[in-house]
Amino acid sequence: MARNFVCSKTEPIVTTKAGKVRGYIIDGTYTFHGIKYADAKRFQMPTEVEPWEGVKDALSYGYVCPMLSQDVPQGEIMVPHRHWPKDENCQYLNIWTQSTSTAAKKPVMVWLHGGGFTAGSSIEQVSYDGENLSKNGDVVVVTLNHRLNILGYMDLSPFDERYKNSANAGNADIVAALKWIQDNITGFGGDPDNVTIFGQSGGGMKVWTLMQTPSADGLFHKGVIQSGLINGFMHSADNNGTKIVNALLKELGFEEGDVLKLESVSFDLLAAAYLKVAPELARGGAYIGCNPIPNEFYVGDPREVGFTEHAKTIPVLIGSVMCEFAFGPGVANKYELTEDVMRQMVENRYKEASGDLIDLFRIAYPDKNLTDLLVLDSLFRDPTIDFIKKKAIHNEAPTYSYMFAYEFPFDDGKPSWHCSEIPFIFHNTDKVPVCNKPGVSDKLEDQMLGAWVNFACYGNPNLPALPDWPACVEGDEATMIFDENCIIRHNFDHDLVELHKKAAPKFPFGGETILH
Amino acid sequence: MARNFVCSKTEPIVTTKAGKVRGYIIDGTYTFHGIKYADAKRFQMPTEVEPWEGVKDALSYGYVCPMLSQDVPQGEIMVPHRHWPKDENCQYLNIWTQSTSTAAKKPVMVWLHGGGFTAGSSIEQVSYDGENLSKNGDVVVVTLNHRLNILGYMDLSPFDERYKNSANAGNADIVAALKWIQDNITGFGGDPDNVTIFGQSGGGMKVWTLMQTPSADGLFHKGVIQSGLINGFMHSADNNGTKIVNALLKELGFEEGDVLKLESVSFDLLAAAYLKVAPELARGGAYIGCNPIPNEFYVGDPREVGFTEHAKTIPVLIGSVMCEFAFGPGVANKYELTEDVMRQMVENRYKEASGDLIDLFRIAYPDKNLTDLLVLDSLFRDPTIDFIKKKAIHNEAPTYSYMFAYEFPFDDGKPSWHCSEIPFIFHNTDKVPVCNKPGVSDKLEDQMLGAWVNFACYGNPNLPALPDWPACVEGDEATMIFDENCIIRHNFDHDLVELHKKAAPKFPFGGETILH
Repeated sequence: MARNFVCSKTEPIVTTKAGKVRGYIIDGTYTFHGIKYADAKRFQMPTEVEPWEGVKDALSYGYVCPMLSQDVPQGEIMVPHRHWPKDENCQYLNIWTQSTSTAAKKPVMVWLHGGGFTAGSSIEQVSYDGENLSKNGDVVVVTLNHRLNILGYMDLSPFDERYKNSANAGNADIVAALKWIQDNITGFGGDPDNVTIFGQSGGGMKVWTLMQTPSADGLFHKGVIQSGLINGFMHSADNNGTKIVNALLKELGFEEGDVLKLESVSFDLLAAAYLKVAPELARGGAYIGCNPIPNEFYVGDPREVGFTEHAKTIPVLIGSVMCEFAFGPGVANKYELTEDVMRQMVENRYKEASGDLIDLFRIAYPDKNLTDLLVLDSLFRDPTIDFIKKKAIHNEAPTYSYMFAYEFPFDDGKPSWHCSEIPFIFHNTDKVPVCNKPGVSDKLEDQMLGAWVNFACYGNPNLPALPDWPACVEGDEATMIFDENCIIRHNFDHDLVELHKKAAPKFPFGGETILH
Repeated sequence: MARNFVCSKTEPIVTTKAGKVRGYIIDGTYTFHGIKYADAKRFQMPTEVEPWEGVKDALSYGYVCPMLSQDVPQGEIMVPHRHWPKDENCQYLNIWTQSTSTAAKKPVMVWLHGGGFTAGSSIEQVSYDGENLSKNGDVVVVTLNHRLNILGYMDLSPFDERYKNSANAGNADIVAALKWIQDNITGFGGDPDNVTIFGQSGGGMKVWTLMQTPSADGLFHKGVIQSGLINGFMHSADNNGTKIVNALLKELGFEEGDVLKLESVSFDLLAAAYLKVAPELARGGAYIGCNPIPNEFYVGDPREVGFTEHAKTIPVLIGSVMCEFAFGPGVANKYELTEDVMRQMVENRYKEASGDLIDLFRIAYPDKNLTDLLVLDSLFRDPTIDFIKKKAIHNEAPTYSYMFAYEFPFDDGKPSWHCSEIPFIFHNTDKVPVCNKPGVSDKLEDQMLGAWVNFACYGNPNLPALPDWPACVEGDEATMIFDENCIIRHNFDHDLVELHKKAAPKFPFGGETILH
């Protein structure tokens, strides 16, 4: 059925601090794509955009940050992508809202995309589209691009004062976006005093790194961390960028110390040089320059340095999915295999630990097929449990835990994989065929959207359509299992994860490539 | 509502000549993305793909051909795009079908994308998605990528026998795809004896160049040319590629005649060199190497050299849109302007011709706003009329004419622009917000899809929901005007177009960039 579309010379127009922008309205959802929220010179801190006269169209998504290498089109059935033209002048955001009345004051949900700190964009996944979340949740949804990889996270601080925060320039872009939201979101029907940042994978990491970023204090009020902690990913810097910058200069044929040239060389050349020198530097233990590192701007990993006083006041909703790296071929006819065959498969993978693992798996996941243990995740789940423990001991704000354990109707029954919960949060299963299970998936996306929205509204994800969901307290991780039937469990998999992380320390099935 | 999704280890799988492929089924539509239909070495003719064992997944769109320059993200509200990873190994096709029974024998519609012969892809526009067309029309829809620009259409024939058709390698890819369809489409429920090629802009040009390509004779049976002729675009070659190839070699620092090096140099370097030398060569009158040129493979423009005997037997549906290059800002409050103001605007643009143009415009488009004349098209319409005249004199097969004149609910009433009819043909107005006008757009997409499908089925676009639509005959161009009310007109705008092309020889409003 045709929808109501409005985009005239006078409507919808919103006045921002820098000037007017025009979006469009589709069936009541006000939509703005590609609003520039900041400008930045390479490696330097973002600045406010210059004011303009007249009305700028916000009808096309903006450039996304260049990546170090081109994506390979594969696995689209599991995670459908949108690619987009790239430019380092990439500080754009998108807004979906149900009102442009300054009196509306709806909760604001700001999505931080995944892809580590090196890849992805606000529109990288088809499921990031904000219309359904805004409409069904009556919230203001903001998604944004920011600088990534060597453009956003390479430390050049020893070389010049103006690079003093280049190691966190990408996160500084996000802070600039959050400031833009403080300045402008009222005009889009949003409440600047009720802003939730949420993100998955690298986006989850951005949530907790921003909790530890003093300049972001007060710019957001709640955080959702989806599969945002992974063992072995966030390594501490063992130098301050000098080695990699010097290697880059040498590779590019520039003189030692001539860092200014790195500002103007084309990104393609810079990236090629980086890709050439990075492996050798990494082998030598040198930091590879694509993650936030602690400095004046960023306090550091809360699990290592403790939560800041402000971070303790942030309600957190945190979780992961059952089989994060289950990207490989599924097990054929898994529900027709005999117990013996399945046990043998488990033993082939986990050797002597398999017996105990099976027992613990049966306790944690009594309704799941034993073959799911072959691709069970602990790389994310283990640090997530650790984060929850360390956050929940602070009483200033609640911490809610979830596990996404839905089985998809793909490959004879595919356990949940990294990113697979996102279409449910955004109520976008209509755009991702693999999610669809009549009688099941609609209910689950209603429940998950409802929980996320209630958390954004009230700092509490409870809603009538779910069992009572207590916050975590010391010694008791109450976890909402999102599945065909949602239930609450307590410390349901801690023993399993403890054993699994020792028995399966490596990524299964080439999952290494997923986080770049 | 959740949809029915099927993609198991055993279903849906189709056996092709080279091996088995697996797609997915969504609400009954069998969907296959990214099937490799040919391989090719750079500048050389395509070859059949190597056979494989087992089952290949056809669940991700394949690489698209690299372009000479990156697109700028703008105008998305009018033509929403999908970008994708690029590689010259780009011979991939996609299929949507309602059956995989070899007995189904449904008509096959093969979409050839636009972007001149230099850009675009099978998925470049959101509206190219084939599901709705297949489902609503009960046809097999195929979309495909092929080589473009210097990879697909640069003449190196003087340098080596193996480059003898490099000037038409891109079209040769399409012929390979049509051969693949002959070999394999039965397994996807299609009728290899009822294949229609249809395309818009460059895609329309591909349709008529393939009509003039003997090796494609018998591989398709009908053709639809949508905005596929433009004055001044298809210039004859004034040399055989020697000048441009030599300029490229020089720019790249290779020795004269060392053409082999052009096969292995990276596309990025090749493209950069081409972009550097092309303008100077073009100024010197040298062919810029991105369009098909007549050779043993391709007979030439039928309006210049005549239709081949085989082309005369191809039923053709052909048309354009009212204001092809109306991409610029619309006229504000156009329906509130006085006659005097509108006449003044027309006079500012067309000077002394304005009075006659207004009279002729009122005859051709009695219900349209006079400001639409400011962006009226004749660059496409003029050669389209010429093509129809020259085709319709042959009685071997019918020629049907249409004009798309829908006004979009955008910018206070926006006349139809280049590409704007595509969502209606594909029944994809649900994916393109700007098309939506409750009570109007649903009906129009039903009518247009119905006409296209009936033409594909029977070589005749008539259907009960439209007025009687006669084929064109000498001296009588019967044109279906697709609009809120569809009507048949006869030679309705010939005088207008004749005057307009003299009064407005230039692209208005920067439309030059659209066709690359």
